[in-house]
Amino acid sequence: MSKLWEKGYTLDPLIERFTVGKDHITDMKLIRYDIVASVAHAEMLAKTGFLSNEELEKLKAALKKLSDLIDSNQFSISPDEEDCHTAIENFLVREVGEAGKKIHTARSRNDQVLTALRLLYKDELKKLQQLIQELREQLKSFSKRFGRIKFAGFTHTRKAMPTNFRTWSMALYNALGDDLKLLRFVFEMIDQSPLGTGAGYGVPAKIDRRFTAQRLGFKKIQKNPIHTQLSRGKYEFLLLHSLSQISFDLNRFASDIVLFSLPEIGYLSLPRELCTGSSIMPHKLNPDPLELVRAYHNRIVARQMECAMITSNLITGYHRDFQLLKEIVLESFEIVEQLLLVMKLVFEKLRVNQEKCRASLTKEVLATERVYELVEQGIPFRNAYRSVAEELGSERE
Amino acid sequence: MSKLWEKGYTLDPLIERFTVGKDHITDMKLIRYDIVASVAHAEMLAKTGFLSNEELEKLKAALKKLSDLIDSNQFSISPDEEDCHTAIENFLVREVGEAGKKIHTARSRNDQVLTALRLLYKDELKKLQQLIQELREQLKSFSKRFGRIKFAGFTHTRKAMPTNFRTWSMALYNALGDDLKLLRFVFEMIDQSPLGTGAGYGVPAKIDRRFTAQRLGFKKIQKNPIHTQLSRGKYEFLLLHSLSQISFDLNRFASDIVLFSLPEIGYLSLPRELCTGSSIMPHKLNPDPLELVRAYHNRIVARQMECAMITSNLITGYHRDFQLLKEIVLESFEIVEQLLLVMKLVFEKLRVNQEKCRASLTKEVLATERVYELVEQGIPFRNAYRSVAEELGSERE
Amino acid sequence: MSKLWEKGYTLDPLIERFTVGKDHITDMKLIRYDIVASVAHAEMLAKTGFLSNEELEKLKAALKKLSDLIDSNQFSISPDEEDCHTAIENFLVREVGEAGKKIHTARSRNDQVLTALRLLYKDELKKLQQLIQELREQLKSFSKRFGRIKFAGFTHTRKAMPTNFRTWSMALYNALGDDLKLLRFVFEMIDQSPLGTGAGYGVPAKIDRRFTAQRLGFKKIQKNPIHTQLSRGKYEFLLLHSLSQISFDLNRFASDIVLFSLPEIGYLSLPRELCTGSSIMPHKLNPDPLELVRAYHNRIVARQMECAMITSNLITGYHRDFQLLKEIVLESFEIVEQLLLVMKLVFEKLRVNQEKCRASLTKEVLATERVYELVEQGIPFRNAYRSVAEELGSERE
Amino acid sequence: MSKLWEKGYTLDPLIERFTVGKDHITDMKLIRYDIVASVAHAEMLAKTGFLSNEELEKLKAALKKLSDLIDSNQFSISPDEEDCHTAIENFLVREVGEAGKKIHTARSRNDQVLTALRLLYKDELKKLQQLIQELREQLKSFSKRFGRIKFAGFTHTRKAMPTNFRTWSMALYNALGDDLKLLRFVFEMIDQSPLGTGAGYGVPAKIDRRFTAQRLGFKKIQKNPIHTQLSRGKYEFLLLHSLSQISFDLNRFASDIVLFSLPEIGYLSLPRELCTGSSIMPHKLNPDPLELVRAYHNRIVARQMECAMITSNLITGYHRDFQLLKEIVLESFEIVEQLLLVMKLVFEKLRVNQEKCRASLTKEVLATERVYELVEQGIPFRNAYRSVAEELGSERE
Repeated sequence: MSKLWEKGYTLDPLIERFTVGKDHITDMKLIRYDIVASVAHAEMLAKTGFLSNEELEKLKAALKKLSDLIDSNQFSISPDEEDCHTAIENFLVREVGEAGKKIHTARSRNDQVLTALRLLYKDELKKLQQLIQELREQLKSFSKRFGRIKFAGFTHTRKAMPTNFRTWSMALYNALGDDLKLLRFVFEMIDQSPLGTGAGYGVPAKIDRRFTAQRLGFKKIQKNPIHTQLSRGKYEFLLLHSLSQISFDLNRFASDIVLFSLPEIGYLSLPRELCTGSSIMPHKLNPDPLELVRAYHNRIVARQMECAMITSNLITGYHRDFQLLKEIVLESFEIVEQLLLVMKLVFEKLRVNQEKCRASLTKEVLATERVYELVEQGIPFRNAYRSVAEELGSERE
Repeated sequence: MSKLWEKGYTLDPLIERFTVGKDHITDMKLIRYDIVASVAHAEMLAKTGFLSNEELEKLKAALKKLSDLIDSNQFSISPDEEDCHTAIENFLVREVGEAGKKIHTARSRNDQVLTALRLLYKDELKKLQQLIQELREQLKSFSKRFGRIKFAGFTHTRKAMPTNFRTWSMALYNALGDDLKLLRFVFEMIDQSPLGTGAGYGVPAKIDRRFTAQRLGFKKIQKNPIHTQLSRGKYEFLLLHSLSQISFDLNRFASDIVLFSLPEIGYLSLPRELCTGSSIMPHKLNPDPLELVRAYHNRIVARQMECAMITSNLITGYHRDFQLLKEIVLESFEIVEQLLLVMKLVFEKLRVNQEKCRASLTKEVLATERVYELVEQGIPFRNAYRSVAEELGSERE
Repeated sequence: MSKLWEKGYTLDPLIERFTVGKDHITDMKLIRYDIVASVAHAEMLAKTGFLSNEELEKLKAALKKLSDLIDSNQFSISPDEEDCHTAIENFLVREVGEAGKKIHTARSRNDQVLTALRLLYKDELKKLQQLIQELREQLKSFSKRFGRIKFAGFTHTRKAMPTNFRTWSMALYNALGDDLKLLRFVFEMIDQSPLGTGAGYGVPAKIDRRFTAQRLGFKKIQKNPIHTQLSRGKYEFLLLHSLSQISFDLNRFASDIVLFSLPEIGYLSLPRELCTGSSIMPHKLNPDPLELVRAYHNRIVARQMECAMITSNLITGYHRDFQLLKEIVLESFEIVEQLLLVMKLVFEKLRVNQEKCRASLTKEVLATERVYELVEQGIPFRNAYRSVAEELGSERE
Repeated sequence: MSKLWEKGYTLDPLIERFTVGKDHITDMKLIRYDIVASVAHAEMLAKTGFLSNEELEKLKAALKKLSDLIDSNQFSISPDEEDCHTAIENFLVREVGEAGKKIHTARSRNDQVLTALRLLYKDELKKLQQLIQELREQLKSFSKRFGRIKFAGFTHTRKAMPTNFRTWSMALYNALGDDLKLLRFVFEMIDQSPLGTGAGYGVPAKIDRRFTAQRLGFKKIQKNPIHTQLSRGKYEFLLLHSLSQISFDLNRFASDIVLFSLPEIGYLSLPRELCTGSSIMPHKLNPDPLELVRAYHNRIVARQMECAMITSNLITGYHRDFQLLKEIVLESFEIVEQLLLVMKLVFEKLRVNQEKCRASLTKEVLATERVYELVEQGIPFRNAYRSVAEELGSERE
């Protein structure tokens, strides 16, 4: 099957494998969005006279057929087609002949992939918001069940002062609230149609960019084609950052749960069905899911870094380097969605050990409260602090 | 001089040097904000009965005196005081005795430093917005002067299609517009008063957090003390990301200018006063400032990663690890501000070489326009593409 | 099928999917090494009396059968078996009953996976050395064909002084020579048998670690079990660094080739079969493979960073977080091997354009040589430098 | 004062400040090495006829004088001189006139800085080896004092199996042994003289590179000038990696000490003189030095990444971007040296709490030993494992 740019020579097979990479697999996620965008593009081409109505109908029918084939797992992208954009054009040429050869009028693969990706990102961002809300509901419910139980909070990995599980679980609730705001901001930032910017230098043809933008549900068009190309990488960097803000919170609370469910602390207990065992030590119940939540945060951050590195020190305009971004963003969405689901389950199953919590509130943990009793009696804070410190110190010896 | 937590033992000198690090220097930037916050805090303490009015007046006078000393370079933080928070309390105790020992009532160094940092961040974010606006003005002016000049834009570091300097400079204008939006978002996110959350577990005393928030110009209070501690690191991560979005754009355009001013391309020329020379090659005029703009982006990204790494895999609550964040955020603000100033100067001085630009628009660069002439004549796009490709190919041989 | 640690409860299905991740796929690369190590382990168990000779023979026959099934693509790891270690034990229990239940005597999955990974790493390191040597041969041959051709080398992306393609290609040859040394160092570092260290705290049974080390071709045993666990992550960090040193060199030379084959410079030309085209611009021949070589370096560096992040801020002893390292190291080997193959092909096909090279040696490029002519005449270097600078400057005006 | 490349125009003041950065400060560490290298270079110039013996003597006397001024803190580099290389040449011209203008014969700032840096790196690498040895001695001594005390080692942050402090402290001893090997490897890798490679394209004059290499104690010369330039960044990447391998180990053990000295675990106790307090909680003794050791590892890793990012996607030949590497490498040496000193002190002062350790060896921790008792009785391992798991499980309920 032919490539979009085919013009009478054959690519070296090693180079072909190398340049295609995993695109023919990754793109199976993208192809649905590309079909939707192709329908809107075809309608615009008909509206502006590049396609006859008959051609348009044929193309739409063929795109519908392709969509159905995908739904029923009867379509795959062959490696020698490179990507979903080529696969679609080839399919259309096979199905409807001449009209298929016109689908690429007034677009480049560059704006085509940007458009499909933006549509996919918008869907994923909505999905993430939904999953965050569900986790937040679970946190509220956890707080209702266990919120009043007090325990010694930590600073410097040392018992510090009393707090309770309401404050603790609502802290994550609030942090996820910050993340929701960021996701909404990112959504708004990327909600611009790149279609019609071609390969970063526009298209020498009269097209109607507002029409396609509207048909695809974009809030506006992204006018400047160089800015549009620049936003490849820039917006992915932002997206990956917003994902790493979510995983940041989960990493912190997963770390808390690992420590708080350590029997020597014992504030929390994880049910067995969330723990795996050891192949050698029969007694072990290990908090693997929480360790993996913790670890995946680091992967997401590394992906953000990868995105920054790949796009650094390059001039404006498309570079093939950017191809690698597609894979890491798509996988990162998947990972963070999984993390949110796992943490929802964790908070559903997590239990608080009231006795252990009560036992943690030793005299030392209440020292600050003792200081403030003295302050209430009129003793300057620093003197009260030193006097309580001495009390505790002499007991310790 | 004593430390805030001093209680009858001496720290090992190596450990003292190691734990203080550069804080006594870095904090000279922070101390003004800490004074402002201390004034508001003292007023609140008077309002809620922890200080008499007389004590308040004494403290305010002493804080004013300290502020004047700083203004006239007559104050420095000694390394054995650790940081500006200790230096302030020690100064107050020396100046006003008992009242000084009361200033730390109802606050911890944790919420104190968070408050001072937030105030500083807000100022820096405003300053950045101002600098971005100034650069954008310069870009508009550049576009007015040179915008109509056409040149061959690049994809894959290869001449691709015609564009002009309006599109090019406005692309940076737009990208910086994205950054402005992000800065405003970040400003709003951090515009919450942490004062009163103590060391992450609140303060066992009746205080008026809304009062200090209002006096310090915060839009609201950050209620949950664990969330407040969590936001140390989380918000710095976000801040550093927003800085790296700015440097991302500048890195790309600095790279463009380095290449476009290469004599073999020659679209642009940099005046000598922006170039340095070689110690061995007398002819060289090197674009060092642009290379450094490019390089500093990578430093900002690395700082963002450092922030993510330092805060990873830890439990909730303060850790001394977070101390390192202060230095990297403050330095990063300074760097990005410098980058914006340098790029403003660059766009003021940059010249376009019209002749070289015109010469770049060779037949090949116009090939896509030729394709669309054929498309206008009714030839399907893909056929038109292949026919023009053949034309060019045969000429090449 | 059962897990190694199964003991009467069922894992939540979401958690099961999440914790297994891609291990059942990734491990198909590892299973051969695990079989080899299992044979040696079984032999040691027979030698030390934990297995009868009959049991040993049964186990060896079953492991041979498993190996054959894998060779003929008739074996796969089911997701509910978690990993290849479990798959092997389950297979053995199915095949030989009681003896299969003894194979895990005196080992843990921890030392088992460490052993299999080390064997795999050693093979991959040898393969890399071979591929580097092949690329170096190609560089020598390139140097023979084109080495004498002179061109203007660059500093600051500006023409600087004359050099030739011998110096240029041999620079990569030398850099790869550095990498070879590093690979050999890494090989020697990891060439220690971890088998017998259990889960990081040894095995409470009398075993013969030297026997298995010798049978598996390890130079020595890694004695300290906590050090052995620590080396998970530590050695991967080192390995990934050595891979990123290779990709570092290739990134630099890929960047060179992209620029040097830009027609405006034109020193080099890439044949069409290494270039891909544009979907919209019929004239384009894009250096995609070199852009991808460049980009993959950034991926390898990001992987190294991911390894560092995942292993940071954790206590000694195994954490499930480390599971994620397996995937990134294995993929990184694959990538770097591909990069070396691609660059070998590139240097085989790359052509030097003698005319363009000659034309690059303009008067300015020869300025330093002119300075040294004056130095030869006894003029102090700095005066000679300034005098030549003046000459060139006046011509320029 | 003039710059080396000065030729009749003035740099914009903003650009001057920006391009110089902190070099005039950082270079105060480098200048001694530059003086040593300048002496060797002058001797070579005399040997090859570029300097008379009289000129050589004058230059050597002046360089000696400069060295003395530095020793007595009477010399500083002014910002408008840019760096130590310029400061030296300017000093020599002031002191000895014409001969001073000849010192730059046959060298460029590029090979000059590379030479000075290599000499500095070699010294720092030796210092690091010394510090590691001292820490290792301390570990041995710790092991002698406390090594026999047993405690429950952890996996998955859960008590796992018995180990002792000998195994624990010797694990760090061994890991640091790995690091020593790497440092020696790095030393050998960089032990090549770059002097004479000019700006990456050699020097058009007959010089004796072996002479300077020998005088400066380099094992050999680095022949290929492009390879020499490439090694700027490449070798720094390697150096920073070797530093991050050291900090990797310290991060892990600092994390252990933070947890093991948590009273709820209590294996270890840190004396007060290594702990700081809280400004609000009088009872706190916080392990700040260990938290900072942990945190600095992340800084070193981030620096390594910064080095990789700055040098990525660039063509061969010097770029001003590389200037930023000097600062991060020099600071990283300082940091890691401090970490080693701090950890030596920590291990000198650290105490083991025998009672708490004994108490940690509960029945569950001994479960694996129980399994092996059954295995000794002839029960297949997997059956023994399940039987002990059942025992423990039923007790738990």
